[in-house]
Amino acid sequence: MIRRRLEAGGPATIKLPRVIDFRSDNTHGASPEILEALMRAAAGTMTSYGGDEITARVRERCCEIFEHDVEIFPVVTGTAGNALAIAALAPPTGSVLCHEDAHIYQDELGAPEFFTGGAKLVPIPGADGKLHADDVRLLAHEITCISITQATEAGTVYTPDEVRAIASVGLPVHMDGARFANALVTLGCSAADITWRAGVDVLVFGGTKNGVIPTELIVVFRKELAEEIAPRWHRSGHRVSKMRFLSAQFEAYLTDDLWLRNARRANAVAQRIGRELDVLRPVQANVVFVRFEPRVATALNEEGFLFFDWPLFGPDAVRLVCGFDTTDEDADALIAAVKRLHLP
Amino acid sequence: MIRRRLEAGGPATIKLPRVIDFRSDNTHGASPEILEALMRAAAGTMTSYGGDEITARVRERCCEIFEHDVEIFPVVTGTAGNALAIAALAPPTGSVLCHEDAHIYQDELGAPEFFTGGAKLVPIPGADGKLHADDVRLLAHEITCISITQATEAGTVYTPDEVRAIASVGLPVHMDGARFANALVTLGCSAADITWRAGVDVLVFGGTKNGVIPTELIVVFRKELAEEIAPRWHRSGHRVSKMRFLSAQFEAYLTDDLWLRNARRANAVAQRIGRELDVLRPVQANVVFVRFEPRVATALNEEGFLFFDWPLFGPDAVRLVCGFDTTDEDADALIAAVKRLHLP
Amino acid sequence: MIRRRLEAGGPATIKLPRVIDFRSDNTHGASPEILEALMRAAAGTMTSYGGDEITARVRERCCEIFEHDVEIFPVVTGTAGNALAIAALAPPTGSVLCHEDAHIYQDELGAPEFFTGGAKLVPIPGADGKLHADDVRLLAHEITCISITQATEAGTVYTPDEVRAIASVGLPVHMDGARFANALVTLGCSAADITWRAGVDVLVFGGTKNGVIPTELIVVFRKELAEEIAPRWHRSGHRVSKMRFLSAQFEAYLTDDLWLRNARRANAVAQRIGRELDVLRPVQANVVFVRFEPRVATALNEEGFLFFDWPLFGPDAVRLVCGFDTTDEDADALIAAVKRLHLP
Amino acid sequence: MIRRRLEAGGPATIKLPRVIDFRSDNTHGASPEILEALMRAAAGTMTSYGGDEITARVRERCCEIFEHDVEIFPVVTGTAGNALAIAALAPPTGSVLCHEDAHIYQDELGAPEFFTGGAKLVPIPGADGKLHADDVRLLAHEITCISITQATEAGTVYTPDEVRAIASVGLPVHMDGARFANALVTLGCSAADITWRAGVDVLVFGGTKNGVIPTELIVVFRKELAEEIAPRWHRSGHRVSKMRFLSAQFEAYLTDDLWLRNARRANAVAQRIGRELDVLRPVQANVVFVRFEPRVATALNEEGFLFFDWPLFGPDAVRLVCGFDTTDEDADALIAAVKRLHLP
Repeated sequence: MIRRRLEAGGPATIKLPRVIDFRSDNTHGASPEILEALMRAAAGTMTSYGGDEITARVRERCCEIFEHDVEIFPVVTGTAGNALAIAALAPPTGSVLCHEDAHIYQDELGAPEFFTGGAKLVPIPGADGKLHADDVRLLAHEITCISITQATEAGTVYTPDEVRAIASVGLPVHMDGARFANALVTLGCSAADITWRAGVDVLVFGGTKNGVIPTELIVVFRKELAEEIAPRWHRSGHRVSKMRFLSAQFEAYLTDDLWLRNARRANAVAQRIGRELDVLRPVQANVVFVRFEPRVATALNEEGFLFFDWPLFGPDAVRLVCGFDTTDEDADALIAAVKRLHLP
Repeated sequence: MIRRRLEAGGPATIKLPRVIDFRSDNTHGASPEILEALMRAAAGTMTSYGGDEITARVRERCCEIFEHDVEIFPVVTGTAGNALAIAALAPPTGSVLCHEDAHIYQDELGAPEFFTGGAKLVPIPGADGKLHADDVRLLAHEITCISITQATEAGTVYTPDEVRAIASVGLPVHMDGARFANALVTLGCSAADITWRAGVDVLVFGGTKNGVIPTELIVVFRKELAEEIAPRWHRSGHRVSKMRFLSAQFEAYLTDDLWLRNARRANAVAQRIGRELDVLRPVQANVVFVRFEPRVATALNEEGFLFFDWPLFGPDAVRLVCGFDTTDEDADALIAAVKRLHLP
Repeated sequence: MIRRRLEAGGPATIKLPRVIDFRSDNTHGASPEILEALMRAAAGTMTSYGGDEITARVRERCCEIFEHDVEIFPVVTGTAGNALAIAALAPPTGSVLCHEDAHIYQDELGAPEFFTGGAKLVPIPGADGKLHADDVRLLAHEITCISITQATEAGTVYTPDEVRAIASVGLPVHMDGARFANALVTLGCSAADITWRAGVDVLVFGGTKNGVIPTELIVVFRKELAEEIAPRWHRSGHRVSKMRFLSAQFEAYLTDDLWLRNARRANAVAQRIGRELDVLRPVQANVVFVRFEPRVATALNEEGFLFFDWPLFGPDAVRLVCGFDTTDEDADALIAAVKRLHLP
Repeated sequence: MIRRRLEAGGPATIKLPRVIDFRSDNTHGASPEILEALMRAAAGTMTSYGGDEITARVRERCCEIFEHDVEIFPVVTGTAGNALAIAALAPPTGSVLCHEDAHIYQDELGAPEFFTGGAKLVPIPGADGKLHADDVRLLAHEITCISITQATEAGTVYTPDEVRAIASVGLPVHMDGARFANALVTLGCSAADITWRAGVDVLVFGGTKNGVIPTELIVVFRKELAEEIAPRWHRSGHRVSKMRFLSAQFEAYLTDDLWLRNARRANAVAQRIGRELDVLRPVQANVVFVRFEPRVATALNEEGFLFFDWPLFGPDAVRLVCGFDTTDEDADALIAAVKRLHLP
């Protein structure tokens, strides 16, 4: 069901001997390269509202990475990116098919409904946190567009074949890519293969959860969608005037593969944990789901390990997220503590 | 009439011997103190979505500055701040009185209508870009709330008495404070005197136009409004997950009077210009309106002076905005060029 | 899932030797008493927009029937009535719990989402087409209000105790009473007992499906809700200028128990059918669900019996609805035909 | 300014020796032909939601009258018709140009804003209550569509040339035809000449103000607009299930020129008044604006003459509306009373 995430996720001030934080990738800070780019971008005056050179360069860089003539819209949250993208695909009277775990259904307090002017989300179950083409086909006649999450909220990854099968039903596809980099390094395919070549119309390309301060990029693969997004982007207050500061972050993110390097590290740590603990879902990105009985969970918290309960995945389920700067030592400390606490 | 600001404001790449930029305060960069605060905020993990310590400290600082128990909501644009604040004051069936120059009417592509679910803006004229209490009183019976801009879009400043007279009609008041600091240093009064003590219910406290990267703060003076804003803030995608990075900027902005120092400098430069050129509106903040005949405007552009035409204020009207880092030398260069170009 | 009901329900022109129509209660005409009331109401001029005497009398009559000081809003569709009522209970960020069969979820193309400005429907299953208090309680913390249907879309009826148990979770309750009269004659209780005394805040009191031309009445049991509904009623185009013509229908409907007489007759015919055929749901109102194998369904259609497939209730399920003027002979003809077609 | 019309227009119960009602055309009853059609339509069962034969015949009749292949959508208020039509022409980010007297701006409590999802009305002045092509052209670059009223709220009538000049700016045109019949009999042209041949894309063809119970017809001249309207019509609760009862009224209205005969009579009475009193606007339809000093207005009210103040047209302005059944005697009584009251 719809979790209300109005409360912030945890105690503001944590007084512990040390803290090892697996709560979310957005509790982590920022890569030094991102911060340095901000410094450089601060000098001089520059055209506002996206007319600056840095934004132009980011668009060009995205054209290269995606091997496609794309349009981009920088925003500061995935919620904004997803809702703007979906509003370009679904009219107020439309229906949006998504997985029942989806962030757009579970965590955004009705953002898609708000931005579309009242379209309806149609959430369905599906193994491994994914939509499956057969289920999609059955509902296709009553649906306007499809939203998939890559990597999924279950920490799994769609293959290009799976995306292609879903898109083959003939409906527009939105990809929530809050953890797009994490999915891509697992897949080892090109950014094009898992997006427009597989039938994706619009991607929300996440930066925030992977070392960026707060920036996501709406990447549009069909030009006519950009015309739908542009005025909504402005009127929803998401077109930042000093856009160079968002774009500069993304330029650094896409330079020297920072985005892929950060994701690779986070994934590797997650897999290190996944190899040692009993997992509830396959570990294909930077998120691990396990079951900690309450006694163990409490003891871990007292030792400084932070994580969220994840009742959506059953009793005592918890989610462990590895950030771009989570270390092997963090993982090993957790694994050792869990094993020690389970000794008879 | 409603200017459409979807196009970015000027050429992306300016090839000129030098550029002196009076286009807008949002073409300027960021104060070093703001950037340093971002660096410091990047270390370690921190509770997301506003549950962090920095956000808590900014709230406390605002309570001191405004001498009131306030709630705050950081956002990245004034458009978002204004629309969220107004949506807390006006139901979908409401009407919002504003000056016909107002940013919410002229420049936001329908943001208040979107966030309120269809409330109507009722724009009226008023000398010096201000609403006047007598006009407000005449319309009070058919209006739900009032929106004023401080400093105004005409570069003028409301006195506490003027605000109090407007609020005395008994309707809730929103203050668009994109240039709040610029107004305050002109008035020399306290932040409390020009806001809640004069009857303002909610302020959008601008940072972006005054040296911050992009952050504005919705400051709520009546607690019950915070309950209206909180869920809308989240569902409109304006509740940034790594909020520490917005809050850290505002903490630096409010430290050692950076906000007032930046505004004082910008105002001083504007007044320097205003003393030498024929102005169309009183210069009370950091914005100057003058008339440049086309020949002069073109020549100035060719010399590297950038500014926007402002047809709202008549034929050949232009707007000159001084940023936090515009220098006396910039002003003197402009003044000299204008005088030289007007020589017979 | 969400059936799209944009297509009209069946062939426009039916060329059959005779037609016996079980498709819906809205394929039936109007009671003579209703038509006569329209005639009488047509004379002379009368204040428009609800300021007329007939509307005032209908409100008074409702106060008697419901033993409560109510406010009323006449509308021409249940969809409008439900959406207006729900918009008074749920803000744009709210969630509305309903049964997964509910008309508001299945048949209204997003009307509640539209009128609320984007609130989310949360549909859940429940035996006999009803919400059950235990399920409601589990979800209560994440829900804004509850919508129940009386009689339900499954043709069953909530008892006052069941409604009271649901309302006892402490959330506002909307009752979709498209077939309210049918439920009431089954229950044999007072209109007050099954509405406000059991915790219902607002009822959409159906007339259309029970012999009225097209009029439903929003009946408000808490005065403050009327203030929410009134402006939305007008701006959604549902406040008919010549309202006397809607009110006159309802005055006749509530005179000499026409509403109860019509419902009693429809229910009796449905139960006559239910006693002879194998039903999929208990027959407690005027709707019967049975399973007709395709061969039988086709043969019945050819003999002039009209009904809708009801795939929501399983393969080969069909819905049979009895109108206010469906006769015992109609029922007997159907029963005989079904039995004959099932002979070996 | 925006008049709030939530209050009903006048006293519910009028105790006067006699009443002659010039308040509005919607205070009048219904033509006998309309009522007889309702009687006839009530027999038997019929496909609901517009799939019935009567609705099909009304569409065919409209194709004849407008000499065009049109789509139709019956609704019960002009507010609904206008808002649905405009929502098909303007996206949520659009702007709708209208006259400042327009019903959509003055009287609908934000209906267009609601149905469009937040588009902005841009009201401008214009002589005789009309938009003028030159003014429209100046604003065309910032406007999405144009709404004109025929006959206007000032009781004047656009000629085909005037409409054509407005439409020639190249934007879609909506015509609010609440008093379309009254305009047409004045013009003496064909229904096609004043609508699609002059560039109108969608007409709201009024019946309610001209003897129909409450029915208006959205008439769509471009098929693709029908696809925009259809789902909105349903989800806004305006697709009446027993649609035959709306369609039957319009069938009678369009039979034997009832619509034109009713309008001709109302116009003739208005012109009779206009010839004898000093009018504020040219009398080209069934509405007359005059100035009654307060002493006269009060005396007339006491004698049983009812009318509305019309402050929009200046101090002491009142509006006199003639219904389809207002008589020459009614007019003469008013004229005589006014003249008598003005005697020295």
